[in-house]
Amino acid sequence: MTQKTDCLFCKIVAGEIPCYKIWENDYFLAFLDIKPINLGHTLIVPKKHADDLFDLPVADLREVGQVIQTVAQMVKTGTGADGINIGMNNGSAAGQLVWHVHLHIIPRFEGDGFKHWPGREDLSVGDFETIQAKILAK
Amino acid sequence: MTQKTDCLFCKIVAGEIPCYKIWENDYFLAFLDIKPINLGHTLIVPKKHADDLFDLPVADLREVGQVIQTVAQMVKTGTGADGINIGMNNGSAAGQLVWHVHLHIIPRFEGDGFKHWPGREDLSVGDFETIQAKILAK
Repeated sequence: MTQKTDCLFCKIVAGEIPCYKIWENDYFLAFLDIKPINLGHTLIVPKKHADDLFDLPVADLREVGQVIQTVAQMVKTGTGADGINIGMNNGSAAGQLVWHVHLHIIPRFEGDGFKHWPGREDLSVGDFETIQAKILAK
Repeated sequence: MTQKTDCLFCKIVAGEIPCYKIWENDYFLAFLDIKPINLGHTLIVPKKHADDLFDLPVADLREVGQVIQTVAQMVKTGTGADGINIGMNNGSAAGQLVWHVHLHIIPRFEGDGFKHWPGREDLSVGDFETIQAKILAK
């Protein structure tokens, strides 16, 4: 597996730093987040280093959907969660703290109190048409 | 494509309700969220109805990683975002509001002010070992 020097998650993949392992195959490893939003919060990382979503190779992209479903089902069943949030933060502006791409599998419970960010309701048709055109132009 | 009666996103896929389309292929459709966290916030949905992550068939799971990367790159470039959050809410306890599985592609900007949920720092080794054992037991 390709490791990056001084990468926390590469060291966990290599067994140089311990983790609470939940699941693995040849390409991905899942382990408990040690600062969990709720207990059972699990991270999925590719074993081969990639910085973020945009750095993931096609081979990993082909597998990741099934890995997410498998690990999320394990977390949901094992914790008795009522729901599951999947999250991935790409870039420091998006809250990425470790520069080895990782997915958050977060068990959620009725009444646990976490609120989602509010959506804007102040926008016009013109605002949407303008941003749509910008995205399609690239 | 398999539609579910009275499903908002099935109606959008079928063209019965308009959307600001960003991208599509035979299996997935991406369109602007009309209550965006930031303008350019895009949803990805499978064209064939599935309630949530656990209801997605293997064929969609094999494709979804590449779809996420493609659409996230378009949104990042088109909006000039500094980062991208990927999110998926499964179950009402996790904030799911429309019962047709969807991924959120959220452009983020330095200083936009959205805060991530805090991680717990009050847990012991025993807490982690206990939940790990519960997840692995199932």
